[in-house]
Amino acid sequence: MSQGLKEQIIERVKGDLQQVEAALKNGLKPNVELVTAIASHLLFAGGKRLRPLLMIHSARVCGYSGGFEIEFSTIFEYLHAATLLHDDVVDAADVRRGEKAAHTKWPAPQVVLTGDFLLAQALTIAAKTREPDIIDVIAGITKEMSQGEIDQMEKRGDLGLTQDAYLKLIERKTAVLIQGACKSGAILARAGREEREALSRYGFHLGMAFQMADDLLDYLATAEQLGKNPGADMREGKLTLPLIHSLANAPEKDKAWMESAVREAEFDPDRFEKLKQMLVKYKGIEYTQSRAKEHVQKAKACLDRVPENESRRLLFLIADYALERKV
Amino acid sequence: MSQGLKEQIIERVKGDLQQVEAALKNGLKPNVELVTAIASHLLFAGGKRLRPLLMIHSARVCGYSGGFEIEFSTIFEYLHAATLLHDDVVDAADVRRGEKAAHTKWPAPQVVLTGDFLLAQALTIAAKTREPDIIDVIAGITKEMSQGEIDQMEKRGDLGLTQDAYLKLIERKTAVLIQGACKSGAILARAGREEREALSRYGFHLGMAFQMADDLLDYLATAEQLGKNPGADMREGKLTLPLIHSLANAPEKDKAWMESAVREAEFDPDRFEKLKQMLVKYKGIEYTQSRAKEHVQKAKACLDRVPENESRRLLFLIADYALERKV
Repeated sequence: MSQGLKEQIIERVKGDLQQVEAALKNGLKPNVELVTAIASHLLFAGGKRLRPLLMIHSARVCGYSGGFEIEFSTIFEYLHAATLLHDDVVDAADVRRGEKAAHTKWPAPQVVLTGDFLLAQALTIAAKTREPDIIDVIAGITKEMSQGEIDQMEKRGDLGLTQDAYLKLIERKTAVLIQGACKSGAILARAGREEREALSRYGFHLGMAFQMADDLLDYLATAEQLGKNPGADMREGKLTLPLIHSLANAPEKDKAWMESAVREAEFDPDRFEKLKQMLVKYKGIEYTQSRAKEHVQKAKACLDRVPENESRRLLFLIADYALERKV
Repeated sequence: MSQGLKEQIIERVKGDLQQVEAALKNGLKPNVELVTAIASHLLFAGGKRLRPLLMIHSARVCGYSGGFEIEFSTIFEYLHAATLLHDDVVDAADVRRGEKAAHTKWPAPQVVLTGDFLLAQALTIAAKTREPDIIDVIAGITKEMSQGEIDQMEKRGDLGLTQDAYLKLIERKTAVLIQGACKSGAILARAGREEREALSRYGFHLGMAFQMADDLLDYLATAEQLGKNPGADMREGKLTLPLIHSLANAPEKDKAWMESAVREAEFDPDRFEKLKQMLVKYKGIEYTQSRAKEHVQKAKACLDRVPENESRRLLFLIADYALERKV
């Protein structure tokens, strides 16, 4: 099923993807070798290009035919990559766990400056749109994301993280950027207020669902599916919804055990398995799945207010994929 | 003389300065405490507010009376502060010298994220201008500065740095931002092309002169004047124009000695004094002073093409101050 959904999506976007790849490469040259190396390592490591695709098809669903959607869509991949790079520096320096971000091959200063460069590149392309409303969106994204990062850093290891605080955090960390990509597409197409709003809401709910699905995958996927070991959140002391809900539902003894499991710096596979069983027992998995499903349904409902066409069908498929994906 | 110039300037801008301070404070709240602490430490450490003042008076010299110049001028102070913060991370981690940036009191991740936040804040205010030309300028600044930082990092300790490479580096590191502040003021005032260009060139030459003066002060000022020890560039292996010119003019033996002095990780006051004498002997100091003076003259000549008024007189004073300042 899921594989079928993925294939359907890829079939529809493979032409776009090729053009996005070319545009992303083009935006990186001519540049300092080091930047190209660091940025490429991340940018061309098999990303799904979700954000560019959403921008492109949010523009097209509203009838855009100006021809700049591919170039402008790279804004959102560069922004995403810039954030990941600065995230790496934060994670790598998390002395509490003493573990270096696995995919950081370069010293922090180089990574910081490459992130700055990618952000500057995103801005440069955004400026080319000459659309003050798109600039507003980008400015809002950078501000929310930077505050989200700071929040996340401060809340690392906080066992009292509430569901509301978690929701705000994933909104800032993930949903705002995906929402911004969709909204910018609608703005580029000079869509009316209702369509802009519909695509903005679509992006918000999709982003929330994607992050919840990510948080579930960190517990449920295999190492092979993830391309890295699951359980990263437990190791890094990051509380996500499956755990937050389970902690709230568990009796004192099991709650204390779960808390201790997250506090442990050393990863232990048996402990991880037991924690997963608790998340099932106290319905954290089930609850997160149902919240993510709600967001997917809301995202799809927003599409009622945009024209029926090929891009709309793609946006539906992507919403379903948010939940069914295995990576 | 110099003191008189400074006092003349301050007399003219003290009202603006109070408003800029208030606007800068206002832009930082309500926010995460940590960000406020880190950003304030840098932002309110007695900066000259050169960049905001230049933006304000570049707008006013062109007849702007829209009332937003104070708020918008903070863009350039936030951008400046964001760069300094990321610079600190790069300097602090410069293991070659093994010395932590003196004014860095916080761990790198916090500093990186605070820099990101200030950049996002600058963008948010820039978006409020709703002027695509200003957004262009800001995007260009961020891109040039990020490339300048990367360049500078890569060239640290490079004893073969040419004068051309140095000039390109200080253009990116300093002049582009000051130029952008001036140009944005003219754009805000909806000045014609000739005035925009004149103020843009004024800012460029002023920025070049300011950086050359900074590089001279690092050799010539006292610790008391600088508020830190002079000789930082020598300690950090940064080649600046006084040294570059002297290396090119010195016979092999003295050239080799100067190179060895820059290579030494340990600071030695006697060695620093001897290096200064060489910079005098091989005319690096004199040459840099004359190049800086040229830039000041060119900056002032640009002002021929803007209206004669109070702000123009201030811009003249600031140009002269670039050279005469002792801090």
